[in-house]
Amino acid sequence: MPYAAPPRAPSLAGGLMPAVILVRPQLAENIGMCARAMANFALSDLRLVAPRDGWPQKARLKKGAYAASSGAHAILDRARLFDTVEAAVADLNRVWATTARERGQGKRVVAPRQAMAEAASAAAAGGRHGILFGPERTGLESDEIALADAIVTFPVDPGFPSLNLSQAVLLMGYEWFMAARDGELPFAEPVFSPPARRDSVIAFFRALEAELESAGHYRDTEKRALMRRNLRNFFHRGGMTEQDVRTLRGVLVSLVKGRRGAG
Amino acid sequence: MPYAAPPRAPSLAGGLMPAVILVRPQLAENIGMCARAMANFALSDLRLVAPRDGWPQKARLKKGAYAASSGAHAILDRARLFDTVEAAVADLNRVWATTARERGQGKRVVAPRQAMAEAASAAAAGGRHGILFGPERTGLESDEIALADAIVTFPVDPGFPSLNLSQAVLLMGYEWFMAARDGELPFAEPVFSPPARRDSVIAFFRALEAELESAGHYRDTEKRALMRRNLRNFFHRGGMTEQDVRTLRGVLVSLVKGRRGAG
Repeated sequence: MPYAAPPRAPSLAGGLMPAVILVRPQLAENIGMCARAMANFALSDLRLVAPRDGWPQKARLKKGAYAASSGAHAILDRARLFDTVEAAVADLNRVWATTARERGQGKRVVAPRQAMAEAASAAAAGGRHGILFGPERTGLESDEIALADAIVTFPVDPGFPSLNLSQAVLLMGYEWFMAARDGELPFAEPVFSPPARRDSVIAFFRALEAELESAGHYRDTEKRALMRRNLRNFFHRGGMTEQDVRTLRGVLVSLVKGRRGAG
Repeated sequence: MPYAAPPRAPSLAGGLMPAVILVRPQLAENIGMCARAMANFALSDLRLVAPRDGWPQKARLKKGAYAASSGAHAILDRARLFDTVEAAVADLNRVWATTARERGQGKRVVAPRQAMAEAASAAAAGGRHGILFGPERTGLESDEIALADAIVTFPVDPGFPSLNLSQAVLLMGYEWFMAARDGELPFAEPVFSPPARRDSVIAFFRALEAELESAGHYRDTEKRALMRRNLRNFFHRGGMTEQDVRTLRGVLVSLVKGRRGAG
Protein backbone atom coordinates (compact mmCIF):
# COMPACT_ATOMS: atom_id res chain seq x y z
CA MET A 1 0.00 0.00 0.00
CA PRO A 2 1.41 3.36 -0.94
CA TYR A 3 0.58 5.18 2.24
CA ALA A 4 1.46 2.32 4.56
CA ALA A 5 4.39 2.08 6.92
CA PRO A 6 5.47 -0.93 8.98
CA PRO A 7 4.48 -0.94 12.67
CA ARG A 8 6.97 0.99 14.69
CA ALA A 9 5.45 2.07 18.00
CA PRO A 10 2.56 0.97 20.18
CA SER A 11 -0.81 2.63 19.60
CA LEU A 12 -2.37 5.19 21.86
CA ALA A 13 -5.20 2.70 22.49
CA GLY A 14 -6.41 2.72 26.06
CA GLY A 15 -5.53 6.37 26.59
CA LEU A 16 -8.20 9.01 27.05
CA MET A 17 -8.81 9.57 23.36
CA PRO A 18 -11.99 11.33 22.28
CA ALA A 19 -15.03 9.16 21.58
CA VAL A 20 -16.39 9.23 18.03
CA ILE A 21 -20.18 9.27 18.27
CA LEU A 22 -22.11 8.62 15.07
CA VAL A 23 -25.67 9.78 15.52
CA ARG A 24 -28.25 7.88 13.48
CA PRO A 25 -25.80 6.92 10.72
CA GLN A 26 -27.61 5.72 7.62
CA LEU A 27 -25.17 3.52 5.75
CA ALA A 28 -23.24 0.64 7.26
CA GLU A 29 -20.41 1.25 4.78
CA ASN A 30 -19.99 4.70 6.26
CA ILE A 31 -19.67 3.24 9.75
CA GLY A 32 -16.88 1.03 8.42
CA MET A 33 -15.11 3.90 6.67
CA CYS A 34 -15.29 5.94 9.87
CA ALA A 35 -13.71 3.04 11.78
CA ARG A 36 -10.90 2.96 9.24
CA ALA A 37 -10.29 6.71 9.59
CA MET A 38 -10.29 6.33 13.38
CA ALA A 39 -7.73 3.52 13.18
CA ASN A 40 -5.38 5.70 11.12
CA PHE A 41 -5.19 8.11 14.00
CA ALA A 42 -5.26 5.76 16.97
CA LEU A 43 -8.87 6.42 17.94
CA SER A 44 -10.80 3.35 19.07
CA ASP A 45 -13.84 4.49 21.07
CA LEU A 46 -16.70 4.26 18.56
CA ARG A 47 -20.26 4.85 19.75
CA LEU A 48 -23.35 4.43 17.59
CA VAL A 49 -26.65 6.11 18.37
CA ALA A 50 -29.60 4.35 16.73
CA PRO A 51 -28.01 3.39 13.39
CA ARG A 52 -30.69 3.17 10.72
CA ASP A 53 -29.89 -0.41 9.78
CA GLY A 54 -29.32 -1.71 13.31
CA TRP A 55 -26.21 -2.92 15.13
CA PRO A 56 -24.32 -5.19 15.32
CA GLN A 57 -24.63 -6.04 11.69
CA LYS A 58 -24.02 -9.56 10.58
CA ALA A 59 -20.24 -9.36 10.62
CA ARG A 60 -18.08 -9.49 7.49
CA LEU A 61 -21.00 -8.85 5.14
CA LYS A 62 -19.77 -8.24 1.60
CA LYS A 63 -20.93 -4.64 1.45
CA GLY A 64 -21.26 -3.90 5.13
CA ALA A 65 -19.36 -2.01 7.75
CA TYR A 66 -16.63 -4.64 8.14
CA ALA A 67 -15.82 -4.76 4.45
CA ALA A 68 -15.59 -0.98 4.28
CA SER A 69 -13.32 -0.74 7.32
CA SER A 70 -10.26 -2.08 5.48
CA GLY A 71 -9.38 -4.22 8.46
CA ALA A 72 -10.32 -1.94 11.35
CA HIS A 73 -12.43 -4.79 12.71
CA ALA A 74 -11.35 -4.39 16.32
CA ILE A 75 -12.95 -0.94 16.44
CA LEU A 76 -16.22 -2.27 15.01
CA ASP A 77 -16.16 -5.26 17.37
CA ARG A 78 -15.92 -2.91 20.34
CA ALA A 79 -18.38 -0.28 19.07
CA ARG A 80 -21.10 0.45 21.59
CA LEU A 81 -24.76 0.97 20.75
CA PHE A 82 -26.95 3.61 22.42
CA ASP A 83 -30.57 4.66 22.02
CA THR A 84 -30.01 8.36 22.63
CA VAL A 85 -27.25 10.94 22.39
CA GLU A 86 -27.67 11.65 26.09
CA ALA A 87 -26.86 8.06 26.96
CA ALA A 88 -23.92 8.00 24.54
CA VAL A 89 -22.24 11.03 26.13
CA ALA A 90 -23.08 10.28 29.77
CA ASP A 91 -19.52 9.41 30.89
CA LEU A 92 -17.78 12.15 28.91
CA ASN A 93 -16.51 15.46 30.24
CA ARG A 94 -16.98 17.58 27.17
CA VAL A 95 -18.92 17.13 23.93
CA TRP A 96 -18.24 18.73 20.56
CA ALA A 97 -20.94 18.88 17.87
CA THR A 98 -19.78 18.91 14.26
CA THR A 99 -21.92 20.93 11.90
CA ALA A 100 -21.40 22.66 8.59
CA ARG A 101 -23.86 25.45 9.06
CA GLU A 102 -24.75 28.03 11.60
CA ARG A 103 -27.36 26.71 13.99
CA GLY A 104 -28.47 29.78 15.85
CA GLN A 105 -27.55 28.50 19.28
CA GLY A 106 -25.04 31.17 20.21
CA LYS A 107 -22.42 28.49 20.95
CA ARG A 108 -18.70 28.84 20.59
CA VAL A 109 -17.57 27.72 17.10
CA VAL A 110 -14.04 26.40 16.66
CA ALA A 111 -11.95 24.64 14.03
CA PRO A 112 -10.92 20.97 14.41
CA ARG A 113 -7.40 22.04 15.36
CA GLN A 114 -8.56 24.09 18.34
CA ALA A 115 -11.04 21.45 19.50
CA MET A 116 -8.52 18.62 19.39
CA ALA A 117 -5.84 20.71 21.09
CA GLU A 118 -8.31 21.16 23.92
CA ALA A 119 -9.12 17.43 23.89
CA ALA A 120 -5.43 16.58 24.15
CA SER A 121 -4.98 18.99 27.07
CA ALA A 122 -8.03 17.54 28.76
CA ALA A 123 -6.79 13.97 28.21
CA ALA A 124 -3.47 14.87 29.84
CA ALA A 125 -5.46 16.09 32.85
CA GLY A 126 -7.69 13.00 32.95
CA GLY A 127 -10.68 14.33 30.99
CA ARG A 128 -12.42 12.64 28.12
CA HIS A 129 -14.06 14.40 25.19
CA GLY A 130 -16.53 13.15 22.61
CA ILE A 131 -17.37 14.30 19.09
CA LEU A 132 -20.88 14.09 17.67
CA PHE A 133 -21.33 13.46 13.95
CA GLY A 134 -24.85 13.67 12.53
CA PRO A 135 -26.61 11.52 9.93
CA GLU A 136 -25.22 11.71 6.38
CA ARG A 137 -28.16 13.52 4.83
CA THR A 138 -29.41 15.88 7.51
CA GLY A 139 -26.73 16.46 10.11
CA LEU A 140 -27.36 16.79 13.83
CA GLU A 141 -30.72 18.06 15.07
CA SER A 142 -30.87 21.22 17.11
CA ASP A 143 -31.67 19.38 20.33
CA GLU A 144 -28.62 17.19 19.78
CA ILE A 145 -26.42 20.22 19.24
CA ALA A 146 -27.84 21.70 22.43
CA LEU A 147 -26.27 18.75 24.30
CA ALA A 148 -22.80 19.81 23.18
CA ASP A 149 -20.50 22.30 24.88
CA ALA A 150 -19.35 23.84 21.61
CA ILE A 151 -19.52 23.50 17.84
CA VAL A 152 -16.76 22.30 15.54
CA THR A 153 -16.92 23.24 11.90
CA PHE A 154 -14.52 22.57 9.07
CA PRO A 155 -12.55 25.22 7.23
CA VAL A 156 -13.62 24.48 3.65
CA ASP A 157 -14.11 26.41 0.45
CA PRO A 158 -17.61 27.91 0.77
CA GLY A 159 -18.05 27.19 -2.94
CA PHE A 160 -17.65 23.41 -2.43
CA PRO A 161 -18.14 22.67 1.24
CA SER A 162 -19.48 19.10 1.16
CA LEU A 163 -17.39 16.66 3.24
CA ASN A 164 -18.67 13.15 3.72
CA LEU A 165 -19.00 11.52 7.12
CA SER A 166 -15.75 9.56 7.07
CA GLN A 167 -13.80 12.58 5.79
CA ALA A 168 -15.10 14.61 8.73
CA VAL A 169 -14.00 11.82 11.08
CA LEU A 170 -10.64 11.64 9.28
CA LEU A 171 -9.93 15.35 9.77
CA MET A 172 -10.87 15.25 13.45
CA GLY A 173 -8.73 12.15 13.96
CA TYR A 174 -5.82 13.77 12.15
CA GLU A 175 -5.98 16.84 14.35
CA TRP A 176 -6.30 14.66 17.46
CA PHE A 177 -3.20 12.73 16.46
CA MET A 178 -1.27 15.90 15.63
CA ALA A 179 -2.17 17.36 19.03
CA ALA A 180 -1.73 14.20 21.10
CA ARG A 181 1.41 12.93 19.39
CA ASP A 182 2.88 16.31 18.56
CA GLY A 183 2.96 15.47 14.86
CA GLU A 184 5.33 12.53 15.24
CA LEU A 185 6.07 11.06 11.79
CA PRO A 186 6.39 7.35 11.12
CA PHE A 187 9.91 7.60 9.72
CA ALA A 188 12.79 9.86 8.82
CA GLU A 189 15.17 9.40 5.93
CA PRO A 190 18.62 8.13 6.88
CA VAL A 191 21.43 10.62 7.11
CA PHE A 192 24.16 9.43 4.77
CA SER A 193 26.74 12.06 5.52
CA PRO A 194 27.19 14.73 8.19
CA PRO A 195 26.84 18.38 7.28
CA ALA A 196 30.07 19.70 5.81
CA ARG A 197 32.57 21.47 8.05
CA ARG A 198 33.13 25.07 7.06
CA ASP A 199 36.80 24.45 6.24
CA SER A 200 35.84 21.73 3.72
CA VAL A 201 33.37 24.07 2.08
CA ILE A 202 35.81 26.95 1.90
CA ALA A 203 38.57 24.71 0.56
CA PHE A 204 36.22 23.65 -2.23
CA PHE A 205 35.32 27.26 -3.02
CA ARG A 206 39.03 28.17 -3.22
CA ALA A 207 39.79 25.24 -5.49
CA LEU A 208 36.86 26.12 -7.74
CA GLU A 209 37.72 29.78 -7.85
CA ALA A 210 41.40 29.04 -8.61
CA GLU A 211 40.39 26.89 -11.55
CA LEU A 212 37.98 29.52 -12.80
CA GLU A 213 40.73 32.11 -12.48
CA SER A 214 43.15 30.03 -14.49
CA ALA A 215 40.46 29.35 -17.09
CA GLY A 216 39.96 33.08 -17.66
CA HIS A 217 36.41 32.98 -16.28
CA TYR A 218 36.68 36.38 -14.63
CA ARG A 219 37.21 38.57 -17.67
CA ASP A 220 35.71 41.57 -16.01
CA THR A 221 38.03 41.84 -13.00
CA GLU A 222 35.82 44.49 -11.42
CA LYS A 223 33.02 41.98 -11.16
CA ARG A 224 35.20 39.16 -9.81
CA ALA A 225 34.20 39.67 -6.17
CA LEU A 226 30.50 39.80 -7.01
CA MET A 227 30.70 36.72 -9.25
CA ARG A 228 32.50 34.77 -6.53
CA ARG A 229 29.98 35.77 -3.93
CA ASN A 230 27.05 34.76 -6.10
CA LEU A 231 28.59 31.39 -6.83
CA ARG A 232 29.42 30.76 -3.15
CA ASN A 233 25.87 31.69 -2.21
CA PHE A 234 24.48 29.26 -4.74
CA PHE A 235 26.47 26.37 -3.28
CA HIS A 236 25.55 27.40 0.25
CA ARG A 237 21.86 27.42 -0.39
CA GLY A 238 21.19 23.71 -0.32
CA GLY A 239 23.24 23.03 2.80
CA MET A 240 26.19 20.83 1.76
CA THR A 241 27.19 17.57 3.43
CA GLU A 242 30.76 16.27 3.59
CA GLN A 243 29.80 13.85 0.85
CA ASP A 244 28.48 16.70 -1.30
CA VAL A 245 31.81 18.48 -0.98
CA ARG A 246 33.75 15.34 -1.95
CA THR A 247 31.42 14.84 -4.93
CA LEU A 248 31.80 18.41 -6.09
CA ARG A 249 35.59 18.30 -5.77
CA GLY A 250 35.57 15.17 -7.91
CA VAL A 251 33.38 16.88 -10.49
CA LEU A 252 35.72 19.86 -10.53
CA VAL A 253 38.79 17.71 -11.03
CA SER A 254 37.13 15.79 -13.86
CA LEU A 255 36.00 18.93 -15.63
CA VAL A 256 39.44 20.47 -15.40
CA LYS A 257 41.22 17.30 -16.50
CA GLY A 258 38.83 16.94 -19.41
CA ARG A 259 39.47 20.50 -20.46
CA ARG A 260 43.25 20.06 -20.21
CA GLY A 261 43.10 16.81 -22.12
CA ALA A 262 40.98 18.47 -24.79
CA GLY A 263 43.06 21.64 -24.82
CA MET B 1 -25.77 17.72 3.36
CA PRO B 2 -24.58 17.58 6.94
CA TYR B 3 -21.16 19.09 6.36
CA ALA B 4 -22.25 21.65 3.82
CA ALA B 5 -22.48 25.40 4.23
CA PRO B 6 -23.97 27.90 1.79
CA PRO B 7 -21.49 29.81 -0.42
CA ARG B 8 -20.16 32.81 1.42
CA ALA B 9 -16.89 33.99 -0.11
CA PRO B 10 -15.13 33.66 -3.45
CA SER B 11 -12.80 30.72 -3.95
CA LEU B 12 -9.04 30.91 -4.03
CA ALA B 13 -9.17 29.68 -7.64
CA GLY B 14 -6.63 31.34 -9.85
CA GLY B 15 -4.16 31.92 -7.05
CA LEU B 16 -0.86 30.10 -6.89
CA MET B 17 -2.22 27.02 -5.23
CA PRO B 18 -0.16 23.82 -5.25
CA ALA B 19 -0.70 21.43 -8.15
CA VAL B 20 -2.00 17.95 -7.27
CA ILE B 21 -0.14 15.46 -9.45
CA LEU B 22 -1.52 11.93 -9.56
CA VAL B 23 1.16 9.62 -10.92
CA ARG B 24 -0.14 6.57 -12.79
CA PRO B 25 -3.46 6.46 -10.89
CA GLN B 26 -5.20 3.13 -11.36
CA LEU B 27 -8.88 3.77 -10.72
CA ALA B 28 -10.92 6.50 -12.38
CA GLU B 29 -13.13 6.68 -9.28
CA ASN B 30 -10.09 7.63 -7.26
CA ILE B 31 -9.31 10.47 -9.66
CA GLY B 32 -12.85 11.73 -9.08
CA MET B 33 -12.60 11.43 -5.32
CA CYS B 34 -9.32 13.33 -5.39
CA ALA B 35 -11.01 16.11 -7.41
CA ARG B 36 -13.73 16.28 -4.77
CA ALA B 37 -11.19 16.55 -1.95
CA MET B 38 -9.35 19.28 -3.89
CA ALA B 39 -12.58 21.24 -4.36
CA ASN B 40 -13.27 21.18 -0.64
CA PHE B 41 -10.06 23.08 -0.09
CA ALA B 42 -10.02 25.41 -3.09
CA LEU B 43 -7.40 23.48 -5.05
CA SER B 44 -8.07 23.23 -8.78
CA ASP B 45 -4.79 22.39 -10.55
CA LEU B 46 -5.05 18.64 -11.19
CA ARG B 47 -2.38 16.93 -13.29
CA LEU B 48 -2.49 13.30 -14.34
CA VAL B 49 0.60 11.35 -15.31
CA ALA B 50 -0.20 8.32 -17.46
CA PRO B 51 -3.46 7.18 -15.79
CA ARG B 52 -3.87 3.43 -16.23
CA ASP B 53 -7.27 3.71 -17.89
CA GLY B 54 -6.51 6.73 -20.07
CA TRP B 55 -7.73 10.32 -20.00
CA PRO B 56 -10.04 12.05 -20.62
CA GLN B 57 -12.52 9.37 -19.82
CA LYS B 58 -15.89 9.38 -21.44
CA ALA B 59 -17.41 12.05 -19.21
CA ARG B 60 -20.23 11.35 -16.74
CA LEU B 61 -19.74 7.58 -16.84
CA LYS B 62 -21.81 5.85 -14.21
CA LYS B 63 -18.85 4.57 -12.24
CA GLY B 64 -16.17 6.87 -13.53
CA ALA B 65 -14.25 9.86 -12.30
CA TYR B 66 -17.09 12.34 -12.82
CA ALA B 67 -19.60 10.31 -10.83
CA ALA B 68 -17.14 9.93 -7.96
CA SER B 69 -16.31 13.63 -7.87
CA SER B 70 -19.64 14.64 -6.28
CA GLY B 71 -19.90 17.57 -8.63
CA ALA B 72 -16.27 18.72 -8.82
CA HIS B 73 -16.55 18.51 -12.62
CA ALA B 74 -14.77 21.78 -13.32
CA ILE B 75 -11.57 20.36 -11.84
CA LEU B 76 -11.81 17.20 -13.96
CA ASP B 77 -12.63 19.23 -17.08
CA ARG B 78 -9.44 21.24 -16.62
CA ALA B 79 -7.19 18.33 -15.55
CA ARG B 80 -4.07 18.11 -17.69
CA LEU B 81 -2.52 14.91 -18.95
CA PHE B 82 1.24 14.25 -19.05
CA ASP B 83 3.38 11.32 -20.12
CA THR B 84 6.05 11.74 -17.48
CA VAL B 85 6.50 13.23 -14.03
CA GLU B 86 9.25 15.45 -15.41
CA ALA B 87 6.84 17.04 -17.87
CA ALA B 88 4.15 17.41 -15.21
CA VAL B 89 6.39 19.35 -12.85
CA ALA B 90 8.25 21.43 -15.44
CA ASP B 91 6.66 24.80 -14.60
CA LEU B 92 6.70 24.36 -10.81
CA ASN B 93 9.17 25.81 -8.36
CA ARG B 94 9.17 23.08 -5.77
CA VAL B 95 7.95 19.51 -5.73
CA TRP B 96 6.89 17.42 -2.74
CA ALA B 97 6.72 13.62 -2.94
CA THR B 98 4.21 11.88 -0.67
CA THR B 99 5.27 8.50 0.61
CA ALA B 100 4.39 6.34 3.57
CA ARG B 101 7.74 4.68 3.98
CA GLU B 102 11.35 5.54 4.20
CA ARG B 103 12.94 5.55 0.74
CA GLY B 104 16.63 5.74 1.48
CA GLN B 105 17.22 8.93 -0.44
CA GLY B 106 18.47 11.08 2.40
CA LYS B 107 15.84 13.70 1.65
CA ARG B 108 14.21 16.02 4.12
CA VAL B 109 10.99 14.48 5.50
CA VAL B 110 8.24 16.77 6.73
CA ALA B 111 4.60 16.58 7.81
CA PRO B 112 1.77 17.96 5.64
CA ARG B 113 1.45 20.99 7.91
CA GLN B 114 5.06 22.04 7.40
CA ALA B 115 4.98 21.42 3.64
CA MET B 116 1.79 23.41 3.08
CA ALA B 117 3.00 26.26 5.29
CA GLU B 118 6.00 26.47 2.99
CA ALA B 119 3.73 26.30 -0.07
CA ALA B 120 1.62 29.16 1.27
CA SER B 121 4.72 31.28 1.92
CA ALA B 122 6.01 30.48 -1.55
CA ALA B 123 2.66 31.38 -3.13
CA ALA B 124 2.70 34.73 -1.37
CA ALA B 125 6.11 35.33 -2.96
CA GLY B 126 5.01 34.19 -6.42
CA GLY B 127 6.20 30.56 -6.26
CA ARG B 128 4.20 27.49 -7.15
CA HIS B 129 4.52 24.08 -5.51
CA GLY B 130 3.34 20.66 -6.62
CA ILE B 131 2.57 17.48 -4.71
CA LEU B 132 3.22 14.03 -6.19
CA PHE B 133 0.92 11.16 -5.23
CA GLY B 134 1.86 7.67 -6.39
CA PRO B 135 -0.32 4.85 -7.74
CA GLU B 136 -2.77 3.33 -5.27
CA ARG B 137 -1.04 -0.03 -4.93
CA THR B 138 2.64 0.71 -5.13
CA GLY B 139 3.31 4.36 -4.41
CA LEU B 140 5.90 6.48 -6.17
CA GLU B 141 8.97 4.88 -7.69
CA SER B 142 12.39 5.86 -6.44
CA ASP B 143 13.25 7.77 -9.61
CA GLU B 144 10.05 9.77 -9.23
CA ILE B 145 10.89 10.59 -5.63
CA ALA B 146 14.33 11.69 -6.79
CA LEU B 147 12.59 14.42 -8.83
CA ALA B 148 11.16 15.96 -5.65
CA ASP B 149 12.79 18.50 -3.39
CA ALA B 150 11.55 16.84 -0.21
CA ILE B 151 9.30 14.10 1.13
CA VAL B 152 5.95 14.53 2.83
CA THR B 153 4.67 11.74 5.00
CA PHE B 154 1.54 11.51 7.11
CA PRO B 155 1.49 11.28 10.88
CA VAL B 156 -0.54 8.09 11.34
CA ASP B 157 -0.75 5.29 13.85
CA PRO B 158 2.04 2.89 12.82
CA GLY B 159 -0.29 0.05 13.72
CA PHE B 160 -2.84 1.09 11.06
CA PRO B 161 -1.12 3.41 8.62
CA SER B 162 -3.06 2.82 5.41
CA LEU B 163 -4.55 6.01 3.94
CA ASN B 164 -6.16 5.84 0.55
CA LEU B 165 -5.27 8.19 -2.29
CA SER B 166 -8.14 10.64 -1.85
CA GLN B 167 -7.60 10.76 1.92
CA ALA B 168 -3.97 11.71 1.34
CA VAL B 169 -5.10 14.45 -1.05
CA LEU B 170 -7.74 15.56 1.46
CA LEU B 171 -5.20 15.99 4.25
CA MET B 172 -2.79 17.94 2.05
CA GLY B 173 -5.66 20.14 0.82
CA TYR B 174 -6.83 20.72 4.38
CA GLU B 175 -3.38 21.84 5.48
CA TRP B 176 -3.06 24.04 2.40
CA PHE B 177 -6.36 25.71 3.19
CA MET B 178 -5.45 26.13 6.86
CA ALA B 179 -2.15 27.74 5.88
CA ALA B 180 -3.42 29.85 2.98
CA ARG B 181 -6.68 30.99 4.59
CA ASP B 182 -5.40 31.04 8.14
CA GLY B 183 -8.08 28.58 9.24
CA GLU B 184 -11.00 30.83 8.32
CA LEU B 185 -14.25 29.07 9.23
CA PRO B 186 -17.37 29.22 7.06
CA PHE B 187 -19.55 30.69 9.80
CA ALA B 188 -19.76 31.82 13.39
CA GLU B 189 -22.76 31.52 15.63
CA PRO B 190 -24.70 34.72 16.21
CA VAL B 191 -24.10 36.58 19.45
CA PHE B 192 -27.48 37.00 21.11
CA SER B 193 -26.39 39.06 24.03
CA PRO B 194 -23.26 40.99 24.93
CA PRO B 195 -21.05 39.76 27.74
CA ALA B 196 -22.37 40.92 31.07
CA ARG B 197 -21.00 44.06 32.64
CA ARG B 198 -19.29 43.43 35.94
CA ASP B 199 -21.79 45.55 37.85
CA SER B 200 -24.67 43.39 36.58
CA VAL B 201 -22.84 40.27 37.65
CA ILE B 202 -22.02 41.62 41.09
CA ALA B 203 -25.57 42.87 41.61
CA PHE B 204 -26.79 39.36 40.84
CA PHE B 205 -24.30 37.83 43.28
CA ARG B 206 -25.42 40.24 46.00
CA ALA B 207 -29.09 39.49 45.41
CA LEU B 208 -28.42 35.77 45.47
CA GLU B 209 -26.29 35.97 48.59
CA ALA B 210 -28.89 38.13 50.38
CA GLU B 211 -31.58 35.58 49.66
CA LEU B 212 -29.34 32.74 50.79
CA GLU B 213 -28.58 34.68 53.96
CA SER B 214 -32.24 35.21 54.72
CA ALA B 215 -32.96 31.56 53.98
CA GLY B 216 -30.46 30.44 56.58
CA HIS B 217 -28.16 28.87 53.98
CA TYR B 218 -24.98 29.90 55.79
CA ARG B 219 -25.40 27.96 59.00
CA ASP B 220 -21.69 27.73 59.55
CA THR B 221 -20.81 31.42 59.59
CA GLU B 222 -17.10 30.68 59.56
CA LYS B 223 -17.48 29.12 56.16
CA ARG B 224 -19.71 31.87 54.76
CA ALA B 225 -16.88 33.63 52.91
CA LEU B 226 -15.61 30.40 51.38
CA MET B 227 -19.09 29.29 50.32
CA ARG B 228 -19.76 32.65 48.71
CA ARG B 229 -16.48 32.54 46.87
CA ASN B 230 -17.10 29.06 45.53
CA LEU B 231 -20.54 30.00 44.32
CA ARG B 232 -19.32 33.20 42.66
CA ASN B 233 -16.55 31.22 40.97
CA PHE B 234 -19.03 28.70 39.64
CA PHE B 235 -21.12 31.42 38.01
CA HIS B 236 -18.07 33.13 36.63
CA ARG B 237 -16.73 30.06 34.95
CA GLY B 238 -18.99 29.98 31.94
CA GLY B 239 -18.64 33.67 31.13
CA MET B 240 -22.09 35.24 31.64
CA THR B 241 -23.90 37.42 29.12
CA GLU B 242 -26.33 40.19 30.06
CA GLN B 243 -29.13 37.82 29.08
CA ASP B 244 -27.73 35.13 31.37
CA VAL B 245 -27.78 37.56 34.27
CA ARG B 246 -31.38 38.55 33.55
CA THR B 247 -32.35 34.88 33.29
CA LEU B 248 -30.67 33.99 36.56
CA ARG B 249 -32.24 36.92 38.39
CA GLY B 250 -35.62 35.73 37.17
CA VAL B 251 -34.86 32.20 38.36
CA LEU B 252 -33.83 33.57 41.73
CA VAL B 253 -37.01 35.60 42.12
CA SER B 254 -39.18 32.62 41.16
CA LEU B 255 -37.46 30.29 43.58
CA VAL B 256 -37.81 32.77 46.44
CA LYS B 257 -41.44 33.52 45.67
CA GLY B 258 -42.18 29.80 45.42
CA ARG B 259 -40.59 29.18 48.79
CA ARG B 260 -42.43 32.07 50.38
CA GLY B 261 -45.69 30.94 48.82
CA ALA B 262 -45.12 27.38 50.03
CA GLY B 263 -43.90 28.51 53.48
